[in-house]
Amino acid sequence: MIRFNCDYNEGTHPAILERLSKTNMEQIPGYGEDHYCRQAADLIRAKCQAPQAAVHFLVGGTQTNLTVIASALKPYQCVLSADSGHINVHETGAIEATGHRIIPLPAIDGKISAAQVQQVCDAHYADDNPEFAAQPKMVYVSFPTEYGTLYTKQELQELHEVCQKNNLFLFVDGARLGYALTAKKNTVSLPELASLCDVFYIGGTKVGALFGEAVVILNPALQADFRYYIKQRGAMLAKGWLLGLQFLTLFEDDLYLNIARRANEFAARIKKAFQKAGFPLLYNSPTNQQFPILPNELVKKLEGKYVIAHFGHPDAEHTVIRVCTSWATTEENVAALEKDIASL
Amino acid sequence: MIRFNCDYNEGTHPAILERLSKTNMEQIPGYGEDHYCRQAADLIRAKCQAPQAAVHFLVGGTQTNLTVIASALKPYQCVLSADSGHINVHETGAIEATGHRIIPLPAIDGKISAAQVQQVCDAHYADDNPEFAAQPKMVYVSFPTEYGTLYTKQELQELHEVCQKNNLFLFVDGARLGYALTAKKNTVSLPELASLCDVFYIGGTKVGALFGEAVVILNPALQADFRYYIKQRGAMLAKGWLLGLQFLTLFEDDLYLNIARRANEFAARIKKAFQKAGFPLLYNSPTNQQFPILPNELVKKLEGKYVIAHFGHPDAEHTVIRVCTSWATTEENVAALEKDIASL
Amino acid sequence: MIRFNCDYNEGTHPAILERLSKTNMEQIPGYGEDHYCRQAADLIRAKCQAPQAAVHFLVGGTQTNLTVIASALKPYQCVLSADSGHINVHETGAIEATGHRIIPLPAIDGKISAAQVQQVCDAHYADDNPEFAAQPKMVYVSFPTEYGTLYTKQELQELHEVCQKNNLFLFVDGARLGYALTAKKNTVSLPELASLCDVFYIGGTKVGALFGEAVVILNPALQADFRYYIKQRGAMLAKGWLLGLQFLTLFEDDLYLNIARRANEFAARIKKAFQKAGFPLLYNSPTNQQFPILPNELVKKLEGKYVIAHFGHPDAEHTVIRVCTSWATTEENVAALEKDIASL
Amino acid sequence: MIRFNCDYNEGTHPAILERLSKTNMEQIPGYGEDHYCRQAADLIRAKCQAPQAAVHFLVGGTQTNLTVIASALKPYQCVLSADSGHINVHETGAIEATGHRIIPLPAIDGKISAAQVQQVCDAHYADDNPEFAAQPKMVYVSFPTEYGTLYTKQELQELHEVCQKNNLFLFVDGARLGYALTAKKNTVSLPELASLCDVFYIGGTKVGALFGEAVVILNPALQADFRYYIKQRGAMLAKGWLLGLQFLTLFEDDLYLNIARRANEFAARIKKAFQKAGFPLLYNSPTNQQFPILPNELVKKLEGKYVIAHFGHPDAEHTVIRVCTSWATTEENVAALEKDIASL
Repeated sequence: MIRFNCDYNEGTHPAILERLSKTNMEQIPGYGEDHYCRQAADLIRAKCQAPQAAVHFLVGGTQTNLTVIASALKPYQCVLSADSGHINVHETGAIEATGHRIIPLPAIDGKISAAQVQQVCDAHYADDNPEFAAQPKMVYVSFPTEYGTLYTKQELQELHEVCQKNNLFLFVDGARLGYALTAKKNTVSLPELASLCDVFYIGGTKVGALFGEAVVILNPALQADFRYYIKQRGAMLAKGWLLGLQFLTLFEDDLYLNIARRANEFAARIKKAFQKAGFPLLYNSPTNQQFPILPNELVKKLEGKYVIAHFGHPDAEHTVIRVCTSWATTEENVAALEKDIASL
Repeated sequence: MIRFNCDYNEGTHPAILERLSKTNMEQIPGYGEDHYCRQAADLIRAKCQAPQAAVHFLVGGTQTNLTVIASALKPYQCVLSADSGHINVHETGAIEATGHRIIPLPAIDGKISAAQVQQVCDAHYADDNPEFAAQPKMVYVSFPTEYGTLYTKQELQELHEVCQKNNLFLFVDGARLGYALTAKKNTVSLPELASLCDVFYIGGTKVGALFGEAVVILNPALQADFRYYIKQRGAMLAKGWLLGLQFLTLFEDDLYLNIARRANEFAARIKKAFQKAGFPLLYNSPTNQQFPILPNELVKKLEGKYVIAHFGHPDAEHTVIRVCTSWATTEENVAALEKDIASL
Repeated sequence: MIRFNCDYNEGTHPAILERLSKTNMEQIPGYGEDHYCRQAADLIRAKCQAPQAAVHFLVGGTQTNLTVIASALKPYQCVLSADSGHINVHETGAIEATGHRIIPLPAIDGKISAAQVQQVCDAHYADDNPEFAAQPKMVYVSFPTEYGTLYTKQELQELHEVCQKNNLFLFVDGARLGYALTAKKNTVSLPELASLCDVFYIGGTKVGALFGEAVVILNPALQADFRYYIKQRGAMLAKGWLLGLQFLTLFEDDLYLNIARRANEFAARIKKAFQKAGFPLLYNSPTNQQFPILPNELVKKLEGKYVIAHFGHPDAEHTVIRVCTSWATTEENVAALEKDIASL
Repeated sequence: MIRFNCDYNEGTHPAILERLSKTNMEQIPGYGEDHYCRQAADLIRAKCQAPQAAVHFLVGGTQTNLTVIASALKPYQCVLSADSGHINVHETGAIEATGHRIIPLPAIDGKISAAQVQQVCDAHYADDNPEFAAQPKMVYVSFPTEYGTLYTKQELQELHEVCQKNNLFLFVDGARLGYALTAKKNTVSLPELASLCDVFYIGGTKVGALFGEAVVILNPALQADFRYYIKQRGAMLAKGWLLGLQFLTLFEDDLYLNIARRANEFAARIKKAFQKAGFPLLYNSPTNQQFPILPNELVKKLEGKYVIAHFGHPDAEHTVIRVCTSWATTEENVAALEKDIASL
């Protein structure tokens, strides 16, 4: 069976594995206070053109989301998210478990707009007793979204402005950030992203690392004492240099972007194959996740050879599937899939 | 100005005030461990025909909701509610602050159906990884609803069954229970309610008491150690007998039902007055809250003499208002309002 | 049986009862946004000589403690308390339930010192990784303490200074504040107290009210959005004017101080009676709680006629009892107790 | 500089590294639902002689402690711990952040006794109002303790019995379990440990893994829905097989025990060297951590060549240091340290 179901089916990029091997017997201080973490943080700050940013390394996405959000909000404040946002649908109430409400906004193609944010704020403060509802204080967006789609620079700029205007933090979940930055249609550079939000993270788990997410905190108000939050949430890795080493490797020579770009190109070929074969797409994704709609029996046929993810049923006869590529996807497997799609 | 904006504009029913005065210098043990609380609990158990029920007295509605819900759910479990439910719109994220997610269901006339509950459960357990979302474990409904409407016995029976089938608790918020029980169209008696849910409460604050809500816990699994929860949430009144005394007074001679019935009758007159004058109603409420839709300028006119609550704007020219009656509403004020409505 | 076991055995001072009766049918806005609450807040601000203070009214002590503490601390911060402090021994983990650790300090006569606070801060920041422990951010003291004892002005001043120096908030639990302010040996006035702490509360429940605690927030950083916290914790009383009315009555004509002073005088007589009869005291309390040590059989004898509280056993043959007076204590009962002590 | 400051200074045992390399390009399902995790769990169950145990793999120790404890306790329940326990001193209030109080018991050599546990339970239930304090429900002990010491089988048996008697869960933190099991003086086997507690974990991070802790849940009441807890706390690793692979490697051919035994032997040599040189030990540890007491100037001298941890100051002139060995400690470095100690 060939796996196209997600982008974390294999271990890690060989360059990372090699570096872990080479440094395995080095004696290194723990808890992220080592020179690899420092170098990786410096490099990320440089790539973001954000010399004042604080950079921390955590292990996984849900962990990062709950740590960042709970660090930024006061107990009565809430976070706005696309209804399709990862924190709203796929984290077992992790945000609520830290005491905070999520206000879901109806998303279009996985995205929310500045106008929707403004409307929530207006409604909140128009109430005679705003204190009877949780106070909006943060906007959470995923870039790319859970549907592989992208905010344009214009859209992110508008979200930035509506947040500034309403005294909200803008938090960008970049679990798959590499695929966004290297998408052909993308209009947002890494420094631009860093200039438009208060905090974001660069996903490693889904872009070539064994594990790891690099949190970049731009807003000084969110930087203070962040290590306390990491430790309290059980998110401080004892052998913290494992994270620094991985991100150092990913950001030297732009490995992070190169492997993401390659995965996007493979995904574009698969997308084209589905389109050519006459299958519609649920979302028009320019990144590494594709969502074709197939008759159920053809899904079953594909599943004789491939592992893919199911993503719902538009009607009784059809299934939306998710096909993902990654740093580990091979030319050979893509070619096989193209051929099999053509013959469905 | 005459207040029709809510049902807690005045102190307490004279019978309660008198009893508080008469017993003021009695020396009584604290924390709800007195004979007034015991008598009130016994009386409520008898009226509910639920001899095994545990009865506790808390101070307010939000407090009761958060204490009950947090006592029943494990950390990863969530509660289903009408999107218009009090816990979902008017409690400052109090439930989330205890760590639990609310799943809002689109309500019709403030009500949700057993079919909606089943659908949520089906979707949850159909997922390959149900543990990636909070687990449905409780259904919260208000009786009457926040819009004054009522579940029928049939509807409650179905909710009961869907909860039994899916291993969910059914929790009924009875902040205005008296108005439901005494509504002309009501089909659910107090013993029937007690037989259909796992826990509910009898609202005092909005039905004649100074303050106080009587929690009735039917399900033995939810009874254990409930006083720990009350104390931990800051909900245990030092002079606890004040609560027992009030509920004893309300349930002797059916005062609770009598004052609610009278308020319903006044509300019915006001409803009729609006209808007769040609104003539509947003909800067809048989209880003490009415929601007529008026042109904005007529609302302003009414507000020259009455305090009423605003409940949204169906369009730019109209306002939904909320008009409430209570134990304290006078014949004189109702007659005045009827007259003023007629002349709008 | 005559109750001396606590200071909340009876309803409320007649002046409050009368005012509640007189205003019972007034129509008043809810949630503490009425003119009684405003007047009471103004009066308290004036008495505190703190015109910029925010004043809020809550229902009970545990509720107030958890609401104030959780409003002031970030998730990783903790509160320092005497090991005998109410939050540390008698609140069912209510503070921890809001996510915060309590650091208990060994108390002498129920009191902690500035030196102890400094030591905790020094130890915390001396660690190579202070972020591996909760960060000290608030000091909680009770005035009077749970043992009836008092901080001197000098001691409070030192606590104030150590808090300023270490960037900590000072929170004074005044559940029995009246008894402190009117104790013969007391050296701290209400305005002085207000000038020395960041937030404190004036207890009503244990000093003549039916219920209620008035929170006085001096530090502007703690004032913002406090009503959200109140509502979220279920601590916002619907008929909020009941609280305003009570505190207005207590602070007009210094009723609050007068009833506390009288209770202190009765307690002093009882203390003297025990001393005269040769019974030692566990604490030398100048306020309304006394802690004599009696042989077990004499405790039993007393309990034939009086309800008193047990407070531990210094050895197998002796019991520490707690005897309390209050606004409701009668000359007649005190005289009887004096006589019975003498004849033990 | 040679590091003896902790047991997680290097990457991972070569056998693990090799296996990670060899399997790097395998396509494997995520979230711990793979055959490596299944095999590792089966092997651990076999080694524990606990065929009904549930085995889960988490990333780190604090994360494991907070996930396990929060899964076992109801909101009003608390956990008893040695005052020196990791959860009480080194986790930034992580347990309290889940809402639960820790009751610290004065430890002797890092250990608590069944008698202490019984005393807390007796005191709790002897109170007239036990519900005014958090209810004891779990006992947490570390094996080995934070001071390298060991519970005897007899002591663990007594803790087991006191927990059974008082309806408490017994939770054993085995972050360094290997060093306990292979200590010369140890009297507790892995199957015995499994038979005496409700839940424990086998530490990987500090015993040769890159990271990872294997939670073994014996009590069926604690097994249900545990994956929800893991996910909600952000503790579910996307590439979960990385954990299974490591534990499989550690438990095949008893690698886990062999590397721990070797580290213990090195530690015994270092201990002996300190004793021979006339330096007292703060604790008589039979495991891989040693706590000699040295004059400050000799500590400085050692620190010219070695990184060691400071562990407090018995007086102004002396320092307790912590010296640790691990799977990565070399014969060469131990010999050098022995020599340098002798010449101090």
